[in-house]
Amino acid sequence: MKHISILGSTGSIGTQTLEVVRWNQDIMVQALAAANNIDLLEKQIREFSPKIACVWDEKKAKELAVRIKDLPVPVVSGMDGLISCATEKNTETVVTAIVGMIGIQPTIEAIKAGKDIAIANKETLVTAGHIIMPLIKEYGVKLLPVDSEHSAIFQALNGEESNSISRIILTASGGPFRGKKRNELENIQVEDALKHPNWSMGRKITIDSSTMVNKGLEVMEAKWLFHVDLDKIQVVIQPQSLIHSAVEFEDGGIIAQMGTPDMKLPIQYALYYPSRRKLPGTRVDFFQIGKLSFEEPDFETFKGLALAYQVARDGGSLPTVYNAANELAVAKFLNREIKYLDIADLIETAVQNHKIIQNPSVSEILNIEAETYDFIRQLTAKR
Amino acid sequence: MKHISILGSTGSIGTQTLEVVRWNQDIMVQALAAANNIDLLEKQIREFSPKIACVWDEKKAKELAVRIKDLPVPVVSGMDGLISCATEKNTETVVTAIVGMIGIQPTIEAIKAGKDIAIANKETLVTAGHIIMPLIKEYGVKLLPVDSEHSAIFQALNGEESNSISRIILTASGGPFRGKKRNELENIQVEDALKHPNWSMGRKITIDSSTMVNKGLEVMEAKWLFHVDLDKIQVVIQPQSLIHSAVEFEDGGIIAQMGTPDMKLPIQYALYYPSRRKLPGTRVDFFQIGKLSFEEPDFETFKGLALAYQVARDGGSLPTVYNAANELAVAKFLNREIKYLDIADLIETAVQNHKIIQNPSVSEILNIEAETYDFIRQLTAKR
Repeated sequence: MKHISILGSTGSIGTQTLEVVRWNQDIMVQALAAANNIDLLEKQIREFSPKIACVWDEKKAKELAVRIKDLPVPVVSGMDGLISCATEKNTETVVTAIVGMIGIQPTIEAIKAGKDIAIANKETLVTAGHIIMPLIKEYGVKLLPVDSEHSAIFQALNGEESNSISRIILTASGGPFRGKKRNELENIQVEDALKHPNWSMGRKITIDSSTMVNKGLEVMEAKWLFHVDLDKIQVVIQPQSLIHSAVEFEDGGIIAQMGTPDMKLPIQYALYYPSRRKLPGTRVDFFQIGKLSFEEPDFETFKGLALAYQVARDGGSLPTVYNAANELAVAKFLNREIKYLDIADLIETAVQNHKIIQNPSVSEILNIEAETYDFIRQLTAKR
Repeated sequence: MKHISILGSTGSIGTQTLEVVRWNQDIMVQALAAANNIDLLEKQIREFSPKIACVWDEKKAKELAVRIKDLPVPVVSGMDGLISCATEKNTETVVTAIVGMIGIQPTIEAIKAGKDIAIANKETLVTAGHIIMPLIKEYGVKLLPVDSEHSAIFQALNGEESNSISRIILTASGGPFRGKKRNELENIQVEDALKHPNWSMGRKITIDSSTMVNKGLEVMEAKWLFHVDLDKIQVVIQPQSLIHSAVEFEDGGIIAQMGTPDMKLPIQYALYYPSRRKLPGTRVDFFQIGKLSFEEPDFETFKGLALAYQVARDGGSLPTVYNAANELAVAKFLNREIKYLDIADLIETAVQNHKIIQNPSVSEILNIEAETYDFIRQLTAKR
């Protein structure tokens, strides 16, 4: 039996993780944590019988506790609650599918408690890679990427541990606005940006995918996960999303991972690594695909991606600013408060106005996040 | 230091193996064997100082012995000579780059002498896979594929040893006549068939590539090398020869190996497996490639491929007939004695007229080869 805890169980990755649990018969869910969707969380608790549940929102947590008072499942809340879920004693692997920087602290505590981390929370490595990676080493736990691109790289590296990477080919679908120029994106509406061509994902990540900020964050994560210099990470647009990413080695040989776009594969791979298990679903039909294409990313139109390289290179606290500025800007765009192109412009302004702190602590990261939010609020209030 | 012997050192794979030796500084060539090109072999002996050299042709062997009498290198000949090279005492890995069924016996002796086999001789597994594979297991040696497709599959399987294969995607360029119909191939001349779009190879294999008999032989080899049923081996035409082959696992995940078409990569990989080493050469430029395409093989036009599946399924001595018939037919085509389409027709007739012997011994295999040659000679004499 595998024992796992899921932080962010009601989101896209969380629910797909539970599908993987349902499909396999040997995973016990020890803890479930959600932000505020107690309707779904209640159902999940009744189906998967965790030992503990957490709702970030304290009021909602109390409401859920009343609803499930027939069950022996304590409901906790807030950061302490999240940490309780992340460190639940029988848990072997914590799936960090939570969105946002609140994922950092529970991940750190989970590592310190000796848990393997199936990482789906982008912020953890983007903003705190310099804290997380040494901890992973110190506590001898595994860091298993759940993101399809990083999982692909991780799969490609399996068996190649002793060989040095000469290039990471990080593929990108290019999103719904691939091929468009900046002036064509001026009047993009929320509905347009939410139409991802290949992947079914949460709202925030779908917008990030359309701006390529998502790919920028992935570049930063790849740097940490695979210990490579930024100039060895090449983003390649591959609109059919068949090749999920690849690694080139010193001999020129490239190992790529391909598949249909289905997050259950990387989730299951992370949970059973290095074993693969049967997984239902459609298989790649090369004859139906017919053609695959490769394109260079347009760093001018999608300047969020160009900024990501700069931010990752300068490092320190700058990725936190990039991420926080994007987070709030996307929320404002989804809320129809700002225009589509404002997202990247706001990130750029925030990044340009930040004084880098090297090796920021978690509390410094959280402070910088809050400061960046304030900065973005002021900027947008002026408009 | 690595100690290797090369059977077939003056051919395409042999000379490229020596390029890999030249590039690396830690490989000692213990033995070199060639069919009859003593001019090139003499140069190789002077450059690489093997402990022993073999020329298949006895007269040529004597001639070479005179030419290199200033060197302390004995020159042997014939099958005994080949076996002496294959079992040279300090040799760790034997590269079997020899063409034809004469490669079988030295390979068997090398395995029995505890040598790892870097296999480039197709006939060994095609005709004697049922003998070779149990020996490999019995003597605990490695069987390292050198062919680019099988090396790709081998690379894809690295780290996946415990996971079961659901499909092997054996890619093929489709050769110079891809997309042509049978009636368009009636008047194909030797020169047309020798123009391979992507790979620079020997004459015989280039013709085999154009008829897709080469891919048929590879299907048979893959069956033995990777212990898979034929219905799990799918040939996919991928004209750009970027994807050298791939493996799909039970979870639907596909691991592919890609690279520029350069045999030095699989050769070097076989010699240093599982380590990769730097290798000069051009790297894959995805933006320049632009598009990749996938097509279904045309089993009617390239009936040699369809026959290969049938032959591999029926097994026993049938693959020997298939291979021998093709060998002589290609020689006759290259000698302008028969027409291009006669190659597959002759194979078909030979296969249809053969009574299968199950688990043939090496001498039975060699007898069947001789009988098949006779059969083809009679068939073509009648015309």
